[in-house]
Amino acid sequence: MAGDRILLSHGEGGKRTRDLIRKTIARRFDNPVLAPLFDAGLLGRVDGEIAFTTDAYVVTPPVFPGGDIGMLAVCGTINDLAVCGARPVAISCSLILEEGLPLDLFETVLDSIKAAAAEGDTFVACGDTKVVEKGKGDGIFVVTSGVGIVRGGWRPRPANIRPGDRVLLTGTMGDHQVAVIVARQNLALDAPVVSDVAPLSGMLLAALDRFGDQVRFMRDPTRGGVGVALNEMAESSKARILLEETLLPVRPAVRGFCEILGFDPLFLANEGKALLIVDGAAAEGIARLLREHPHGSGTTIIGEVTEGAHGVFLRTAVGGLRAVDYPVGDQLPRIC
Amino acid sequence: MAGDRILLSHGEGGKRTRDLIRKTIARRFDNPVLAPLFDAGLLGRVDGEIAFTTDAYVVTPPVFPGGDIGMLAVCGTINDLAVCGARPVAISCSLILEEGLPLDLFETVLDSIKAAAAEGDTFVACGDTKVVEKGKGDGIFVVTSGVGIVRGGWRPRPANIRPGDRVLLTGTMGDHQVAVIVARQNLALDAPVVSDVAPLSGMLLAALDRFGDQVRFMRDPTRGGVGVALNEMAESSKARILLEETLLPVRPAVRGFCEILGFDPLFLANEGKALLIVDGAAAEGIARLLREHPHGSGTTIIGEVTEGAHGVFLRTAVGGLRAVDYPVGDQLPRIC
Repeated sequence: MAGDRILLSHGEGGKRTRDLIRKTIARRFDNPVLAPLFDAGLLGRVDGEIAFTTDAYVVTPPVFPGGDIGMLAVCGTINDLAVCGARPVAISCSLILEEGLPLDLFETVLDSIKAAAAEGDTFVACGDTKVVEKGKGDGIFVVTSGVGIVRGGWRPRPANIRPGDRVLLTGTMGDHQVAVIVARQNLALDAPVVSDVAPLSGMLLAALDRFGDQVRFMRDPTRGGVGVALNEMAESSKARILLEETLLPVRPAVRGFCEILGFDPLFLANEGKALLIVDGAAAEGIARLLREHPHGSGTTIIGEVTEGAHGVFLRTAVGGLRAVDYPVGDQLPRIC
Repeated sequence: MAGDRILLSHGEGGKRTRDLIRKTIARRFDNPVLAPLFDAGLLGRVDGEIAFTTDAYVVTPPVFPGGDIGMLAVCGTINDLAVCGARPVAISCSLILEEGLPLDLFETVLDSIKAAAAEGDTFVACGDTKVVEKGKGDGIFVVTSGVGIVRGGWRPRPANIRPGDRVLLTGTMGDHQVAVIVARQNLALDAPVVSDVAPLSGMLLAALDRFGDQVRFMRDPTRGGVGVALNEMAESSKARILLEETLLPVRPAVRGFCEILGFDPLFLANEGKALLIVDGAAAEGIARLLREHPHGSGTTIIGEVTEGAHGVFLRTAVGGLRAVDYPVGDQLPRIC
């Protein structure tokens, strides 16, 4: 009801807790696994290799252009499974609410969780809700975990990366982080920037179905952006990755924002993008397939794997070469 | 290092984040699933029905007599799986840290997580760490999820509960909640009360192995205590549960504490206890088996299922009968 707020008694385990769980939460996520409200959701037998992931979401503000913390959490979990080659089977959802949270904001987030799970072809199998005193939290934190089944034997194989492989990125960089910063600071941009938050499992699993091990390794470049994700990929594969600055896709509004505020789009978070390192011969075909999907329409080849010591390097627009290293505490926190 | 604290930059995704994850967290949990630091932990094939659970832990203070928030989280997750008849396979661990958290407290909690997982015969397969600004959190919140395999076809079957079944409790009530309240308020008790936090999977799964469907339904009476857990059990089974007040196990120190402060031990949280509703004929045998386990040495039969409308009732020491209903916002928050 408008004006209603979360109270400490919603978290005490008594009648209010039970009513909140039954009437506001469980009824919304009604499904045969959650409905009995057992201590665990019983998923039945699953045939295949299991993938398991978790992420905590503390984004501020909890609602931003293009999404909210609930959608972000579910998409993030689906994407972490997808880049490991796994189809999401079920999602868990733990909520830490600050006393005073408006109930209608809470319900908005719950609706987003349900909608994002449905878009990712999965569902919420179990959950928990805790309430902390005003000043001991920040509105709402959402922690999701996911169980998935790995697609027919595929797995990330960083060791298979070799010179000649190509680096694909499924769209523009930095949209999510800029959207959140703009919302947090109440900035006005000429062109609005909307978060790219989206579940990528359908698109990425289709690529694995068609191209199998020609896709060597995938990662969703969230916190830390493309720059950090590629450094981690280079490190675990001992590969040297060379990016072409002129090929890096950045929206004009994001580029303008970065130029004014001194951010590097390479290190801005994305929540609906994937990086793929793929076989060089298959790269164009994989890019075409990804572009057929609405979440991958902006897919481009942004670089390649070359001979040499591992690391990430950028060939600049003017032909120079610079190392792309981990940033040292320069980015903004709480964008996811 | 003593004196070191968690900084916002530990959560920004750059070099400090990477160092914290690699040097402080991943190295501690070193195992073949977590080690590659993929976006998901790859658990391999599992044979059987999958159970999936999650819980958020916000206990204050984070360290209390008998345990800490890390041990609490892992044991809680293991126990939620165990009461659904599932052996824990893997645990996930998401951490929300408040800026300024002493690093040595953080490491203490991590050590507890590792130790509790080992005691429950499982391990941490994936994790995430976020940092929020000072005043937007409360030291440390821990959210664990668990994947388990259900023991040979057993599942909670509330519909099978019938008059003549017995209610078992594996030990004294309220130890956890009293230990936390005493620690929070810096109270001095004549006899110290220590949290009962413990992983129960070994004990409960042994009972299922031997007694199978003679165990109808199990629950760990955490937040809301034995009173709320039994009400939920009565509701989902449409059973009438009659407790004998004289049979309810309560430590003298807990009883004294409750009498002074007006708490009812029936509604105090436990973190290392299970309630079992079992076949009447098998009850003594199951109790004997549970008593053989260190975490079940105090197991007693506390009541039975009778004919009549569903609900929970208590035969008092003087022979009266009173309904045990859900408490209405009277308990204390943040005890788990």
